[in-house]
Amino acid sequence: MDLQASERGRELRDAVAAMVRDRIAPLDAEYHAETGTGGDRWRHGPRQSEILETLKAEARDRGLWNLWQTHLDGGPGINTVDYAWIAEEMGKSWLAPEVFNCNAPDTGNMEVFARYGTPEMQDRWLKPLMAGEIRSAYLMTEPSVASSDATNIRLECRRDGDHWILNGEKWWATGAGDPRCAVHIVLARTDPDGPRHQSHSMLVVPTAAPGIEILRGMQVFGDYEAPHGHMHIRYTDVRVPADAMLLGEGRGFEIAQGRLGPGRIHHCMRAIGMAEKALTLAVERGHARQAFGRELLELGGNAERVAEARMMIDAARLSTLRAAAEMDAAHHETGDMKRAAPAISQAKVLVPRVAQEVCDMAIQLHGGMGVSQDTELARLYGHIRTLRLVDGPDAVHLRTVYRAEMKARGLR
Amino acid sequence: MDLQASERGRELRDAVAAMVRDRIAPLDAEYHAETGTGGDRWRHGPRQSEILETLKAEARDRGLWNLWQTHLDGGPGINTVDYAWIAEEMGKSWLAPEVFNCNAPDTGNMEVFARYGTPEMQDRWLKPLMAGEIRSAYLMTEPSVASSDATNIRLECRRDGDHWILNGEKWWATGAGDPRCAVHIVLARTDPDGPRHQSHSMLVVPTAAPGIEILRGMQVFGDYEAPHGHMHIRYTDVRVPADAMLLGEGRGFEIAQGRLGPGRIHHCMRAIGMAEKALTLAVERGHARQAFGRELLELGGNAERVAEARMMIDAARLSTLRAAAEMDAAHHETGDMKRAAPAISQAKVLVPRVAQEVCDMAIQLHGGMGVSQDTELARLYGHIRTLRLVDGPDAVHLRTVYRAEMKARGLR
Amino acid sequence: MDLQASERGRELRDAVAAMVRDRIAPLDAEYHAETGTGGDRWRHGPRQSEILETLKAEARDRGLWNLWQTHLDGGPGINTVDYAWIAEEMGKSWLAPEVFNCNAPDTGNMEVFARYGTPEMQDRWLKPLMAGEIRSAYLMTEPSVASSDATNIRLECRRDGDHWILNGEKWWATGAGDPRCAVHIVLARTDPDGPRHQSHSMLVVPTAAPGIEILRGMQVFGDYEAPHGHMHIRYTDVRVPADAMLLGEGRGFEIAQGRLGPGRIHHCMRAIGMAEKALTLAVERGHARQAFGRELLELGGNAERVAEARMMIDAARLSTLRAAAEMDAAHHETGDMKRAAPAISQAKVLVPRVAQEVCDMAIQLHGGMGVSQDTELARLYGHIRTLRLVDGPDAVHLRTVYRAEMKARGLR
Amino acid sequence: MDLQASERGRELRDAVAAMVRDRIAPLDAEYHAETGTGGDRWRHGPRQSEILETLKAEARDRGLWNLWQTHLDGGPGINTVDYAWIAEEMGKSWLAPEVFNCNAPDTGNMEVFARYGTPEMQDRWLKPLMAGEIRSAYLMTEPSVASSDATNIRLECRRDGDHWILNGEKWWATGAGDPRCAVHIVLARTDPDGPRHQSHSMLVVPTAAPGIEILRGMQVFGDYEAPHGHMHIRYTDVRVPADAMLLGEGRGFEIAQGRLGPGRIHHCMRAIGMAEKALTLAVERGHARQAFGRELLELGGNAERVAEARMMIDAARLSTLRAAAEMDAAHHETGDMKRAAPAISQAKVLVPRVAQEVCDMAIQLHGGMGVSQDTELARLYGHIRTLRLVDGPDAVHLRTVYRAEMKARGLR
Repeated sequence: MDLQASERGRELRDAVAAMVRDRIAPLDAEYHAETGTGGDRWRHGPRQSEILETLKAEARDRGLWNLWQTHLDGGPGINTVDYAWIAEEMGKSWLAPEVFNCNAPDTGNMEVFARYGTPEMQDRWLKPLMAGEIRSAYLMTEPSVASSDATNIRLECRRDGDHWILNGEKWWATGAGDPRCAVHIVLARTDPDGPRHQSHSMLVVPTAAPGIEILRGMQVFGDYEAPHGHMHIRYTDVRVPADAMLLGEGRGFEIAQGRLGPGRIHHCMRAIGMAEKALTLAVERGHARQAFGRELLELGGNAERVAEARMMIDAARLSTLRAAAEMDAAHHETGDMKRAAPAISQAKVLVPRVAQEVCDMAIQLHGGMGVSQDTELARLYGHIRTLRLVDGPDAVHLRTVYRAEMKARGLR
Repeated sequence: MDLQASERGRELRDAVAAMVRDRIAPLDAEYHAETGTGGDRWRHGPRQSEILETLKAEARDRGLWNLWQTHLDGGPGINTVDYAWIAEEMGKSWLAPEVFNCNAPDTGNMEVFARYGTPEMQDRWLKPLMAGEIRSAYLMTEPSVASSDATNIRLECRRDGDHWILNGEKWWATGAGDPRCAVHIVLARTDPDGPRHQSHSMLVVPTAAPGIEILRGMQVFGDYEAPHGHMHIRYTDVRVPADAMLLGEGRGFEIAQGRLGPGRIHHCMRAIGMAEKALTLAVERGHARQAFGRELLELGGNAERVAEARMMIDAARLSTLRAAAEMDAAHHETGDMKRAAPAISQAKVLVPRVAQEVCDMAIQLHGGMGVSQDTELARLYGHIRTLRLVDGPDAVHLRTVYRAEMKARGLR
Repeated sequence: MDLQASERGRELRDAVAAMVRDRIAPLDAEYHAETGTGGDRWRHGPRQSEILETLKAEARDRGLWNLWQTHLDGGPGINTVDYAWIAEEMGKSWLAPEVFNCNAPDTGNMEVFARYGTPEMQDRWLKPLMAGEIRSAYLMTEPSVASSDATNIRLECRRDGDHWILNGEKWWATGAGDPRCAVHIVLARTDPDGPRHQSHSMLVVPTAAPGIEILRGMQVFGDYEAPHGHMHIRYTDVRVPADAMLLGEGRGFEIAQGRLGPGRIHHCMRAIGMAEKALTLAVERGHARQAFGRELLELGGNAERVAEARMMIDAARLSTLRAAAEMDAAHHETGDMKRAAPAISQAKVLVPRVAQEVCDMAIQLHGGMGVSQDTELARLYGHIRTLRLVDGPDAVHLRTVYRAEMKARGLR
Repeated sequence: MDLQASERGRELRDAVAAMVRDRIAPLDAEYHAETGTGGDRWRHGPRQSEILETLKAEARDRGLWNLWQTHLDGGPGINTVDYAWIAEEMGKSWLAPEVFNCNAPDTGNMEVFARYGTPEMQDRWLKPLMAGEIRSAYLMTEPSVASSDATNIRLECRRDGDHWILNGEKWWATGAGDPRCAVHIVLARTDPDGPRHQSHSMLVVPTAAPGIEILRGMQVFGDYEAPHGHMHIRYTDVRVPADAMLLGEGRGFEIAQGRLGPGRIHHCMRAIGMAEKALTLAVERGHARQAFGRELLELGGNAERVAEARMMIDAARLSTLRAAAEMDAAHHETGDMKRAAPAISQAKVLVPRVAQEVCDMAIQLHGGMGVSQDTELARLYGHIRTLRLVDGPDAVHLRTVYRAEMKARGLR
């Protein structure tokens, strides 16, 4: 369980860190400033496109492209532990993940296409995704059911000759607001009466298909996170050919599980970077400001709060790295990562919790400025807060940890 | 220490509760929907004005107007404890405080005018404020210093013949974005070399005075809380006559202390109402939704979380009511409320903390919906979060409690 | 809901406080020093008897005897709120509750005899208990079942002609180690197949009855809390006459509920006093000791910890007083206190939690001394810790609060 | 940063784990049962000696002796990470550390003798300590000062010709109650007016020296932890030859720092084992008991509590292993371990906190049994609680973490 990055991993991390710090982060504010309002929200302004495409080209040139391919042929030759260290750096800028073609949900979707896609799909969707030419969305959560229990998912998918017809609503489809979003991967219920875990299937749906309607963007604490967004979408008699179904009828959860493991840990990795950024802001502010004749950090419990933040961020990072190491080991030994699920769930609960606390502490140290537009803290907070919900809420992951504990003891 | 409302207080509370529930809360969403963007943000739309003025007239008709005047002649004949129960109900709707002419910072400002204002000021500002015809702002916090230590305040105020000239910046001036905002009450430094607590003075400045520039609105987790807003303002050679100074040179903190006590407790009272609203949303959602074959509330620790929320909200309310009772007792016995300061500080720390936790729990129970625009939770959360900062951050109030403890023991 | 003591209550509180401070607390250490080891543990040494009886006589003389009789004829004419203030003072010394004849479980048992006992029982047991001549025990919890669900209780009680025969084991029988303990009140299962809440009955058993065997004392963090103790007892064919059953067959829980409400709140009241004592020790130590050139209280977060303790103790006290006030109101309006159960449960969870935290903080401020025999903190901690278990663990009380919440909303 | 044990480390761990489980833990209760009372407390009973010596011989035979020598010549050829895994297993039984000759404070003292001792000292003290023939104590903390600031230490040490004369009191001298304790290592003040960190020196004092008086044993939550104990000792004109001073005058803190680093981490390692034991007890009890028709673990938030415990124990272990890995790296690169101090401090705060919480949770799940003598939980709790105090209280370690953070950012 080596939690250190490999030499290759360290080089890549340093290169990513440098590019984030010197090239990407300085453009974050300018990029966001051009985001429109109303319907314009979902377009890239000319400067946004320019910033993004220039940086993407630069990342590709530097060999920092598609680093997420930890266990795929033709990948960068690093493992999940390496990627954890790299992704942490990407978490320190809003733009960075996409600049490196490492943003959710595209990484997860690319992995799905690579593993389960037909050659045609790989040609049509995977290739341009890998090239950063199109974007994709993943449609799972639904507004009318508690999606924490995925068996509740009920977007209807019925057979009609050589086609599947899809009807229903999805929301929180991240990235679906982006005009470059060309394809959806959709979890749908194919058999309303089937066994609990074999009634759902995964389908590939072009966004150009008739019957797809984007109802609105979902806000995260008032923020549309445009232009990519988290969209609320309605499917009305959306028709796709039979071979649009991945892996086969009733095998939706099988794909979802394989997809979500890495996705969850990627979120954790980036969240560590966010927590580090919040801590940096807290320390800098607390050091620069004076009250009652002393610097803020030396007042009351503030120094202890900084130490607690450092201690808990480090523990959270170790938890993430350990999950990554277990994923690597599981991959090498069994070909899949199921075995690592409890470790992933631990990190998935611990990291956002720690990041949320650190962010809240940083806000408090900033006074009113902390909740305002003058720091990234409020936006960071909103984003981190959603991590306790996406890809399974805390309660579901604690249940996974509990079950594994009982099973390890032979009590279940 | 009777924490129950008086009979008169109960009647008023029931009337306020009914009006909030039946008349005001149902219009909250419609009111906010008309809020503009960009510069339009700071105007009332026609429907907004209509809603507000209609409801205000109704409140006046029902005798539910200016209920905040707990210890002023001509007030509603209730004490602070009564008002605590009433204000809790107002906290359940965004619009409600203004509808009843009980919103911050106007209540505090009216109290200042009533206590310290010249007859001319009372005629020019207090009367229309009491009538709900104009609004006011309170300018204290500054962007360039840690305002938690109010002696840091440095907006310059120098004498020039019969006038004072003010120069500097203020921010978080709540309500200053409102086009009806006619007057500022400003804390300024009159003597840069004077004794720590006697170098600042309080002045009354008409918003029409030349040299006042509203730089921008401050966001609360991305929300401008328009049309009233929290404004960042620059004063450049703003000139007011000598008698615009309240109470006298160097007596700014004296007024600030008197002003802030009730203001803090009013925030707490309303925050209890917000916590109750968040709990209601949590319970209703948790009851309505099913996962893994059971209603959400019966899964894992959710029922315990509801019980904890109820327990802590009740404790927070008791803490607030006790502070209110101490304020009443102090007022009757000594004419001012200083003695109640530690009890107020306790409530000021405990209530927002509890409300924040309850709100976070409610968000978690809602899944993605909880952070979105589909419930009031995200906006509530942002607003509650600021309460740990406004009118003194937690750390300052804990220090007040600590000092009182040591003094009571004869150790300071 | 007046949470202030009445004038009579205040007088009694002041008298109790003075006697605790001046007469009882100074003898605590001497009393405990005489406690024996091994079998001698369960005897009163000569000095112990002398201290106790002298103080008891003094309490009687001062009119501070049996103050717990808040709603019984011939009582001291105070209500539960008054008694809360008084009991807090008793909590500041180990000996005090017994000195005032107000210790658990005797108060609860006396109440049971007064309400449900036959005239013979009242003559034989209640009179000498009221006089402080004998002691009693309450036998409920059993070693072999989870007693948090009282329907698990299985000490067998079967009819044999004019007698009941009891067989089984009980533990945590507080006070049963005391040589003066003359009577047990026992919860037993009379009908193994009856309805869940009507299968148990309450019986009165003289400790002299053949077949009663005290197996051992239970330790609380290594402390036998001798000479009263918490005993593990075996009943083997213990035979009592038919009229030893209180109220009637199957009505055991009815009595238990009535008995436990006041008992729980008495524990809370005394625990507030314990928390106050812990805070006093923390402040005195933190003030007296220096490190790194400053008094301990001014280092790091210590001053904030003191403030947090004050804030939470005050909130916990308010929660207790509110439960007491609800008990008084319920008693006056309905004759029983059932309606107050959720408020009691809130205090039962909150108070020991707060007291445990304050005690832990005080220990930390003392360094090694805090866990040692040189302060009362370790013993206080152990005692407080048990309060989260006795008379229902936290989880059971949170469930009560949750159910009340749902019922109030019409959702259960 | 490989946190996995080496192959050799794994073998040793498995062997230690097996011996703890099969041979040592089963004798724990019997060993403790023979502990005497009063003065007899500080003697080994015949069965105690037999158990201990038999097990020690067995450990030696199995090659599991003195495994703590991670960076000493002739050691077992493992590093600190390996030892962390091994020590965790030792933490699962009270007797185990001594059985393997790995108990505090002897390991630290042996390290001091090995590094700083004269050949004579090594012959006289180190050899028999390594052989497990004698025991030793470490006298640092004093009753009359806040020892968290070690510069407060004031046991007087003055020169008298060829001798040093020591006068003063120490307490919490772990192991000094043991009749086999032959030598003290003592921190004393040699220069009352010298620079803060160079006024203290470390001396070696035979327990047979005239003038040493053991005043009493200190209790840990009522437990003397006999027969080894934590003793309160008075030195009256204790005279040692000049060469009894280690390393030189004024270099006491230099030795203390070197000594405490490994000591702290060893405590953390064992505490992880204690937390695991507490979790095992919690799970087994919660699985075995039923209430309200379900097993305890499936009631309310209990399953989540188990998951939280697993998550936090794993994070705490990772924090410990990371500190161990940093110690190994620092040792190899710089020859000392100073660089690892912040990582050690993190573990020193996090591990006991987590262990305390897990232990408290386990107690709660056990009901009354949890605080009693029927499980190891109460004793575990007391022991773990002291870990937040010994070798520096939490506050001191948080300060270390804070300082390192600021230094790393160039702000101190």
